[in-house]
Amino acid sequence: MSKHHFSIKFSMEFIKVLSTSFTLPILAIVFLFSFTSSQCHPLDPINPTEFNKIRIIIQKSHLSSLSNLTFHFVDLEEPEKKDVLHWMSLHKHKRVPFPYRRAKVVVRANGETYEVVVDLATRSIISENLYIGHGFPPLTLDDIVQSSRLTLRNRRFQDSILKRGLNISEVSCIPQPVGWFGQLKTRRVLNVPCFYRRGTTNFWARPIEGITTIVDIESMKIIKYIDRFISPLPKAKSANFEPSSQRSVASNDTDTSNIIIKGHEVKWDNWIFHVGFNTRAGMIVSTASIFDAARNEYRRVLYRGHVSETFVPYMDPTFEWYYRTFMDIGEFGFGRSASSLVPLLDCPRNAVYIDGYMADSEGRVVQVPKAICIFERYAGDAAWRHTENGVPGNINTKGQQEVNLAVRMVATVGNYDYTLDWEFKQSGTIRVGVSLNGVMETKAVKYTNNNQITEVVYGALVAENTIAVNHDHFLTYYLDVDVDGIDNSFIKAKLKTMRVKDRKVSPRKSYWKVVKKTMKTEIEAKTHLGLEPTELLIVNPNKMTKIGNDVSYRIIPSRPAMSLLSYDDYPQRRAAYTKYQLWVTPYNKLERWAGGFYADRSRGDDGLAILSRRNRTIDNKDIVLWYTVGLHHVPCQEDFPVMPSIYDGFELRPTNFFERNPLLKQ
Amino acid sequence: MSKHHFSIKFSMEFIKVLSTSFTLPILAIVFLFSFTSSQCHPLDPINPTEFNKIRIIIQKSHLSSLSNLTFHFVDLEEPEKKDVLHWMSLHKHKRVPFPYRRAKVVVRANGETYEVVVDLATRSIISENLYIGHGFPPLTLDDIVQSSRLTLRNRRFQDSILKRGLNISEVSCIPQPVGWFGQLKTRRVLNVPCFYRRGTTNFWARPIEGITTIVDIESMKIIKYIDRFISPLPKAKSANFEPSSQRSVASNDTDTSNIIIKGHEVKWDNWIFHVGFNTRAGMIVSTASIFDAARNEYRRVLYRGHVSETFVPYMDPTFEWYYRTFMDIGEFGFGRSASSLVPLLDCPRNAVYIDGYMADSEGRVVQVPKAICIFERYAGDAAWRHTENGVPGNINTKGQQEVNLAVRMVATVGNYDYTLDWEFKQSGTIRVGVSLNGVMETKAVKYTNNNQITEVVYGALVAENTIAVNHDHFLTYYLDVDVDGIDNSFIKAKLKTMRVKDRKVSPRKSYWKVVKKTMKTEIEAKTHLGLEPTELLIVNPNKMTKIGNDVSYRIIPSRPAMSLLSYDDYPQRRAAYTKYQLWVTPYNKLERWAGGFYADRSRGDDGLAILSRRNRTIDNKDIVLWYTVGLHHVPCQEDFPVMPSIYDGFELRPTNFFERNPLLKQ
Repeated sequence: MSKHHFSIKFSMEFIKVLSTSFTLPILAIVFLFSFTSSQCHPLDPINPTEFNKIRIIIQKSHLSSLSNLTFHFVDLEEPEKKDVLHWMSLHKHKRVPFPYRRAKVVVRANGETYEVVVDLATRSIISENLYIGHGFPPLTLDDIVQSSRLTLRNRRFQDSILKRGLNISEVSCIPQPVGWFGQLKTRRVLNVPCFYRRGTTNFWARPIEGITTIVDIESMKIIKYIDRFISPLPKAKSANFEPSSQRSVASNDTDTSNIIIKGHEVKWDNWIFHVGFNTRAGMIVSTASIFDAARNEYRRVLYRGHVSETFVPYMDPTFEWYYRTFMDIGEFGFGRSASSLVPLLDCPRNAVYIDGYMADSEGRVVQVPKAICIFERYAGDAAWRHTENGVPGNINTKGQQEVNLAVRMVATVGNYDYTLDWEFKQSGTIRVGVSLNGVMETKAVKYTNNNQITEVVYGALVAENTIAVNHDHFLTYYLDVDVDGIDNSFIKAKLKTMRVKDRKVSPRKSYWKVVKKTMKTEIEAKTHLGLEPTELLIVNPNKMTKIGNDVSYRIIPSRPAMSLLSYDDYPQRRAAYTKYQLWVTPYNKLERWAGGFYADRSRGDDGLAILSRRNRTIDNKDIVLWYTVGLHHVPCQEDFPVMPSIYDGFELRPTNFFERNPLLKQ
Repeated sequence: MSKHHFSIKFSMEFIKVLSTSFTLPILAIVFLFSFTSSQCHPLDPINPTEFNKIRIIIQKSHLSSLSNLTFHFVDLEEPEKKDVLHWMSLHKHKRVPFPYRRAKVVVRANGETYEVVVDLATRSIISENLYIGHGFPPLTLDDIVQSSRLTLRNRRFQDSILKRGLNISEVSCIPQPVGWFGQLKTRRVLNVPCFYRRGTTNFWARPIEGITTIVDIESMKIIKYIDRFISPLPKAKSANFEPSSQRSVASNDTDTSNIIIKGHEVKWDNWIFHVGFNTRAGMIVSTASIFDAARNEYRRVLYRGHVSETFVPYMDPTFEWYYRTFMDIGEFGFGRSASSLVPLLDCPRNAVYIDGYMADSEGRVVQVPKAICIFERYAGDAAWRHTENGVPGNINTKGQQEVNLAVRMVATVGNYDYTLDWEFKQSGTIRVGVSLNGVMETKAVKYTNNNQITEVVYGALVAENTIAVNHDHFLTYYLDVDVDGIDNSFIKAKLKTMRVKDRKVSPRKSYWKVVKKTMKTEIEAKTHLGLEPTELLIVNPNKMTKIGNDVSYRIIPSRPAMSLLSYDDYPQRRAAYTKYQLWVTPYNKLERWAGGFYADRSRGDDGLAILSRRNRTIDNKDIVLWYTVGLHHVPCQEDFPVMPSIYDGFELRPTNFFERNPLLKQ
């Protein structure tokens, strides 16, 4: 049995190896014979057999003759949307194969970035491109592991640790991307902050402050080492956390037989959709359609939805902290960071699970067991209800329980855990949201009480010697809506106060009316939320209900929040799209990443804000919505040492899509 | 057995009698022997024995010699807060009686309004006041029933029905308050729109348009009758609704033994609070404290919380519709409108129920079985979680299920059903929210398709001949917060963008910092949401955490929405407080109703906006927050004939109230 017949399960050990006690990240061996290569849906993620095939194709190519060949990205090469839709229309009636199956591979070799498209049927490379733009592909686990080990083994670093009276064997280092701050030439480098584990599993609360270690990960050399100052180390005792004994342990019992999963296609109640997984976006929802009982047909709602980019800027401009302005999707990937879900904690008893697969830096298959869970969620609410007292002799309450289908993954990017939910309702609503969980990034300071603080500390004292630094979370969703067909328009329906002119008619002086305007171009469409009462409609201008209303969905936003950084600040230029919460662009299969594909050290030149400057027309076109869920996090003591979850999200809600409430008997 | 030993259960039949086939609203007879008068908590609602006592005291007084004595309001006379808090501090150690027990009674007699305070121990009237201000007390069921019957029996109305080819025996009339539109003198009148039931239980969808019937309910005479035009009656077929067969029926099973209810006091996990009920607010949450395991003591959070007023203005200024600008709490009462909760629809299997009691227009006891439910809610989420990969040889996920305690009632005010939730979290958060449910108010029109409409129709065509009229819902909550004690301050913590001045220190150009400002007076405190990123803190300026942070809670708002009516419009003057989403006032036990107590035909002169004009100081005082959940409803076809629920709400979240995350083992 040759080496490539093994897949190596170590996704969960993401940062596990980042310590002196390095252990080989091979925990489990999975035989690939159990996988078939029968691919069912053109959007199915690359399967283990295919990952191995891709690795062999690349290894057999001229690229393997270049130095330091590493795999940074292996994903399905996005098939043409028209091909997928055509296949789906055929597939309804009989099982047909999709005409092609291709993978997109981004490798680094010889210090350069290559974009390769591989044909899986013919086992051949069909295109190869040397990328010469700004920014670098996602970091690999090896980049991180090796720069951590390099730091820990460095004599100067060891001296710094010794000088602080600490034991190097209890230090964990977590390399971080450094952003871009106007440099004319950039290299692939990481900054390597380190933490002290003694007495706690929560080393995040014990930062070893004052040291800056910059590693060139291409040459794997420390190119800058500065030890500026020593801060007191926060106590281990306050850093530790354990669950309290849970008095109530709850179950959520529904019959899972309602959830029918074939390959990656999920059928539940009136919904059918596809769930994918890749290293970058993590969970991807595709080709979601809802069954319209009145019309006896499935109708399209969403071609594709996933997190496109995150932006987490910290608000501390000092030397050791200024660069912390993370773009986790592009720099690491939510799939790369996926946690294996823990039954009864992350998902209730009635959940079913899907594993995820991806490639490591050598192109080998990595399995994430239980990467995604799917469950019926009932929270004790009614989906609709009414008590009618007005009919003589008959008090009648009618209604229906609200049982939804939740699709979930957790991305743990170092200290933070993002629980990502897509929730499908029988009413046609899709609720998309995120729970922020995990541990805050803290900074060690001399202060033990707020009354000692006279300088600006850029955060909140959450424990003795511990500042949790102010920061934001922006999660930008890519939403390729296809409301009842490909061509849609984006309409802002503003609620405008009107004065009653003819006061003879009525003593009322005012009312509001709805003033609808179709946004013709990208620049018109971008939106600050919260300023004006507005309904945000995605309309199919080619369809109408029987009584003549525009067939549409509307997006019901979360609380308004946009980036507060200055426009000219470097991190803001890289994540310029966070100045508006909603953007609309014409569909282009190459435009899926709000911060650009090469986000590590990017300059913002291929991000959504720049793409939109072309001001393309979006009226009655295949359009994509980009919606940002934003949260400003002012830390407080309750968030320490691990925070209670904070949820935010938005809804896509049918609005004259159906002829009447689809929950009712039709 | 004398008559007053019976209580009459007919709350559910609220509008049941509003029809030609009038049936006596006595469904069930409950013996009062089962009730003891042992009153446990000074905020316990008036019990059936007490209601009867009150009725007898009033009937024995000089008021009974006046004509037309009717009971409009019977509730606990609010005891002095300092007395309640003193009692609670004693009560911790031993069972002590509260020194007094009083009821507030508002009656109409001889065409005037009397406010009477009754002492229940001495069975005496201790004060009586003739109310001479604007506005009238809440409508009674009799007011509504009789004006409906009067209309149905009126010859001119019967002629109008005949002229339309309809059968009077299938007409339901639902009287509505008429607001105030600048009249110098007002009378107690109702407008009586009517509906056609034939072929449907959902008569709301079949309005008989064009008729205006104004009933003087004091003299019970029709004082104005106009039949202006005939509109086509919408079809019964599209009006009907039935639940679809529910494929998934779910249960939410937790052990209800965790919920300990003694009288009206609820103890659950780390929370203890009191649940009351009255005709006006419905469900009332009082004296909520949370156990702080680190301090081994209960700490106060909220003295009192309930819905204070609702404002539901419709956006149609035409003659038959302009007046529809409802203030349901003051005009009817959410308790008066409480629906008996339906197990497995309104509340899950693990719910426990509390009955409600109130007085009818003759002062007799009315029972609302299952007026409130209390249940543990588990929706499949984690309250906190973190996966730690950075500790060598050990991937560790910790966390805890999120199990909350929900307290719920449903108020069905005619067509609309408000599901009101108070949800207590082990983290210290209180989530307050409302699900809008039920049937929209519709207007019959000639149009069967949107393409026929060229005039302004003030709403959306949701079915043939059926316009659902644009409207808003504003629910204003009274929140007497007592964060760790009585005296609190309200602080706005604004997030301000700062420029980095010393560019030698870092290449960052900007960051945000938190700028806190204590609001000194009422006018400073009132807030438009959504304009600036701001944390809204309720601080106890006399308490600090061990490390010197202000002990506080913060209010996490819902989506911003405020009234769009012109300031000078009459309905807006009556509900002037809806121009801001948040107000803060000093505590005054007489100020609990944002729209004023006498809301029927009120002129806004005793509402929150006027009270706040005094601009009292609120810094380090016993303060009250008034928070408005607002929704603009632009109807769509999915909302017809009964709408899928729409939820909105806000949170009170501990913010440096605890020394650390209270979910953890301390």
